[in-house]
Amino acid sequence: MPAIAQETGTGKVLMMAWMNREALELTVKEGRAIYWSRSRNKLWRKGEESGHVQTLKDIRLDCDNDVILLEVEQLGGIACHTGRHNCFFKQLKNDEWVEVDAVIKNPDEIYK
Amino acid sequence: MPAIAQETGTGKVLMMAWMNREALELTVKEGRAIYWSRSRNKLWRKGEESGHVQTLKDIRLDCDNDVILLEVEQLGGIACHTGRHNCFFKQLKNDEWVEVDAVIKNPDEIYK
Repeated sequence: MPAIAQETGTGKVLMMAWMNREALELTVKEGRAIYWSRSRNKLWRKGEESGHVQTLKDIRLDCDNDVILLEVEQLGGIACHTGRHNCFFKQLKNDEWVEVDAVIKNPDEIYK
Repeated sequence: MPAIAQETGTGKVLMMAWMNREALELTVKEGRAIYWSRSRNKLWRKGEESGHVQTLKDIRLDCDNDVILLEVEQLGGIACHTGRHNCFFKQLKNDEWVEVDAVIKNPDEIYK
């Protein structure tokens, strides 16, 4: 199921990833966001490589029981693998997607 | 693709629904959230029955080009078909999902 991560304090939507039952259970148990990587077909402990762990503050389920909303503290202030604060940095302007948010840290420095 | 609707001003995540290319194009063209209903297999102009239209303020795309984030004004202050402000009204407490947000308007009065 889709899992939305929202930053505590700022309310910014950081990213959307996927969870299966095991990922959800581990997220609750370990108090940090753990997703199911559909591309790598395995559990993904957010921050396991980058250190950009998402500490769990609150967890919600939607009316249809098929979407999760996480409230998290984003360690390092970077959620996106591009080195930006969050993944939604492309804004539609005059029918074109424009990158409007800056890279905070070079991904080459994040993933060594 | 998943489309997340976030309320302008409050920053609350209202709901997640789905969009195809046509829904996205119409959302931009008409300036209101239009989703693809996977259960009814047709376009869903949010608010078409309830009047709870979502007026488009901003639209973002994520790093992988597969998730949309809408910033919307929620007319009527109710996004959820249960009559609540938003769809994420179940909170995990001691391993149980507890309904923590109140119904603002009876759905029977919304959908006549």
